[in-house]
Amino acid sequence: MIRVTVWNEFVHEREHEEIRAVYPDGIHNCIKEFLECDDIVVRTANLFEFEHGLTQEVLDNTDVLIWWGHMAHHLVSDEVVARVQKRIWEGMGLIVLHSGHHSKIFRTMLGTTCNLKWRDDDRERIWVVKPSHPIAQGIPEHFEIEKEEMYGEPFDIPTPEDVVFMGWFAGGEVFRSGVTYTRGNGRIFYFQPGHESNPVYRHPVVQQVIRNAVVWACPTKKYEISCPNFPSLEK
Amino acid sequence: MIRVTVWNEFVHEREHEEIRAVYPDGIHNCIKEFLECDDIVVRTANLFEFEHGLTQEVLDNTDVLIWWGHMAHHLVSDEVVARVQKRIWEGMGLIVLHSGHHSKIFRTMLGTTCNLKWRDDDRERIWVVKPSHPIAQGIPEHFEIEKEEMYGEPFDIPTPEDVVFMGWFAGGEVFRSGVTYTRGNGRIFYFQPGHESNPVYRHPVVQQVIRNAVVWACPTKKYEISCPNFPSLEK
Amino acid sequence: MIRVTVWNEFVHEREHEEIRAVYPDGIHNCIKEFLECDDIVVRTANLFEFEHGLTQEVLDNTDVLIWWGHMAHHLVSDEVVARVQKRIWEGMGLIVLHSGHHSKIFRTMLGTTCNLKWRDDDRERIWVVKPSHPIAQGIPEHFEIEKEEMYGEPFDIPTPEDVVFMGWFAGGEVFRSGVTYTRGNGRIFYFQPGHESNPVYRHPVVQQVIRNAVVWACPTKKYEISCPNFPSLEK
Amino acid sequence: MIRVTVWNEFVHEREHEEIRAVYPDGIHNCIKEFLECDDIVVRTANLFEFEHGLTQEVLDNTDVLIWWGHMAHHLVSDEVVARVQKRIWEGMGLIVLHSGHHSKIFRTMLGTTCNLKWRDDDRERIWVVKPSHPIAQGIPEHFEIEKEEMYGEPFDIPTPEDVVFMGWFAGGEVFRSGVTYTRGNGRIFYFQPGHESNPVYRHPVVQQVIRNAVVWACPTKKYEISCPNFPSLEK
Repeated sequence: MIRVTVWNEFVHEREHEEIRAVYPDGIHNCIKEFLECDDIVVRTANLFEFEHGLTQEVLDNTDVLIWWGHMAHHLVSDEVVARVQKRIWEGMGLIVLHSGHHSKIFRTMLGTTCNLKWRDDDRERIWVVKPSHPIAQGIPEHFEIEKEEMYGEPFDIPTPEDVVFMGWFAGGEVFRSGVTYTRGNGRIFYFQPGHESNPVYRHPVVQQVIRNAVVWACPTKKYEISCPNFPSLEK
Repeated sequence: MIRVTVWNEFVHEREHEEIRAVYPDGIHNCIKEFLECDDIVVRTANLFEFEHGLTQEVLDNTDVLIWWGHMAHHLVSDEVVARVQKRIWEGMGLIVLHSGHHSKIFRTMLGTTCNLKWRDDDRERIWVVKPSHPIAQGIPEHFEIEKEEMYGEPFDIPTPEDVVFMGWFAGGEVFRSGVTYTRGNGRIFYFQPGHESNPVYRHPVVQQVIRNAVVWACPTKKYEISCPNFPSLEK
Repeated sequence: MIRVTVWNEFVHEREHEEIRAVYPDGIHNCIKEFLECDDIVVRTANLFEFEHGLTQEVLDNTDVLIWWGHMAHHLVSDEVVARVQKRIWEGMGLIVLHSGHHSKIFRTMLGTTCNLKWRDDDRERIWVVKPSHPIAQGIPEHFEIEKEEMYGEPFDIPTPEDVVFMGWFAGGEVFRSGVTYTRGNGRIFYFQPGHESNPVYRHPVVQQVIRNAVVWACPTKKYEISCPNFPSLEK
Repeated sequence: MIRVTVWNEFVHEREHEEIRAVYPDGIHNCIKEFLECDDIVVRTANLFEFEHGLTQEVLDNTDVLIWWGHMAHHLVSDEVVARVQKRIWEGMGLIVLHSGHHSKIFRTMLGTTCNLKWRDDDRERIWVVKPSHPIAQGIPEHFEIEKEEMYGEPFDIPTPEDVVFMGWFAGGEVFRSGVTYTRGNGRIFYFQPGHESNPVYRHPVVQQVIRNAVVWACPTKKYEISCPNFPSLEK
């Protein structure tokens, strides 16, 4: 049984009617819905909950954390970020979606700006670059997203361990749309699709990619981590 | 002084008038012309010369070998391939261009099929993915090639050490257009542009990339390599 | 069910009584014995069988091939090597043991000399460098092999995707003792222990590493590979 | 002309007479002395200076920053760390020495704990693993440090781009002693030797490695970096 926590900033859906129209229960609940099955149990958390819903207890019972954020990265507390980082070191998987590229946790794990080029909606075609990767299982050679915010290179990230997907945008850009890392004992997957104004998380292939990534990122055990010289983590 | 040998199969230009119209003296001489300068001395070699122009003596006096081939990969002798491979292990740089992806030497160095998707001419836009890489110095964030044979992913190569360039094609494909490897003591750069029927090697940015790659791939010294259990190399 | 084929050159055990004393039924049968279980079925093959026991049919029914060779690398036919390489591209896993570093198949997959430093038996201690890697599951932080032929750096291989183990030798050398690659759709693991004159494959931790590697290298499906310009493979 | 700033915490040498005996002017001045030459100009900085001596102006005029710290990592201000990080993104090279593995800047760049195993002085032998790397030029195949604090695997770092050196300790440990990364436009080199109680920075080969690393890490230009969503960097 894989225990997933889907974290959503949950600001767009509250503040903008047109986003609420796309995801009436929030992006997190859309993801929860398509992920849940006999082998995967899902809870959700968001910015407005106590400790953003990411208490030590919740994290201790999370195998894979999925992260969606955009407008309010700066409102996520540094203490929670440090706690999530430590759990990744212990083995928890992290899946960062779309605008989460600028989240504190992603930047903290990678050490780069994670800047990229962007503009409004365009047609995207995503290509499988490493067909044998577990995250690419069952994914067609390429698939299309009719409307997706354009994210383009240069994408300021460390050289990934694997580039699983590459994105093509009709307007002339390319992007490393699915990339993997290991940090400590945890596996990290960044996946670019998922602008809030389009129902991208209802796309069956996008759903399959996230499902595959959950299985891939799930740890086999919890590793003990000591954090000398990290005063905030040493209590 | 960097000593470059430009190897060209030299079949298209002999057999097809329309290719000869593009490169009257052969692709090799076009490359030789734009490369030669105070710091770089260039010789050429081709399939029809004795030992394809790649005698031990020529290779011993080559710092960087540039390889263009397409129709006649199978006519390159295995003995010459083994000799080139050994020189790469000793430190010689190798720059493989365009359809050279299926050359014996490239496949021998990488160990994969180097297969890719392809179709006829299209408009390509090439993006710099790693701006700080020596091969990207002075190259604009992106540049265009009006007509270039389409090469698309999946490209069956080992995970590159660096992806310096990524290509976008108007018809909907993406490609890792500039990738680097180290094998033994030699540096290898594959660069996708250069279909024989278009004057791609007269494009000033393409020329700059190849010039940068020559400097990057040039070794500082010759390393001694023993080849036990390579009977053909042990004499 | 994982279908493993253990290939052993099988020369030492036939020709030298003292080696036969260590592995009376050959190294291959020792490995077969400890691997076989409800989830793993094992067959063996050796140099002296028809097509070295690696007919197309055998390979088509092999998920993971384990390779031990030493004295007779040059006697392995190039045709069989090409066939094995194609199967790796299709997804078959390859585990290369000890002196297999100089085997044709390993060098063909990696494109380097795979040279290393070596001398006679010494005490080796092997350290886990990437504890969360699937191949390291259940392996202690370090373990010892009382007598093992020394293999030392520099080891002329491409930068591995993962260095799982590093070896320490009492006489003063270090070695990347467990390294992984992907080539085409196949996973490759090289593991250094296993000199023929010591009963290393009876060491329970060594056995666990190989068992883990078999599970890790097993493909989920067979990928179709076309081999244009590989005349020997195109029939 | 390469402009180097050598940063030293400078606590041991002030507080402990036996360390002062080894480095009477501080580790920073020892490094400054052997680095300075016609092509390299060196300044120093330490914890006790205003802004630890790393004002924006100093950093703007630094091509390569060398970092030695140990007891007082937690006293380095987060603001200075953020400033150094931004300069690395802009292209500044970073060389982290010995106990700097636990410095804020190293951990911030890599995103891992950078934990390792350690114990008191032992004899170390360092092996060149990638002889063709620019940092290994002129370095013998292996060299010894008679007394060095033991640093052992597992070393919790992201998979390096290159492992240039590996260390062997008489007591039975191994270590990735010289590793490289790129983050943003900056090159990073970690080098393990340099315990404060031994005169390791007077070792000619250690000096050559650091000199090579300075040349390797020096950027060709300053890259412009925008830092959206980094409030502290956006002024």
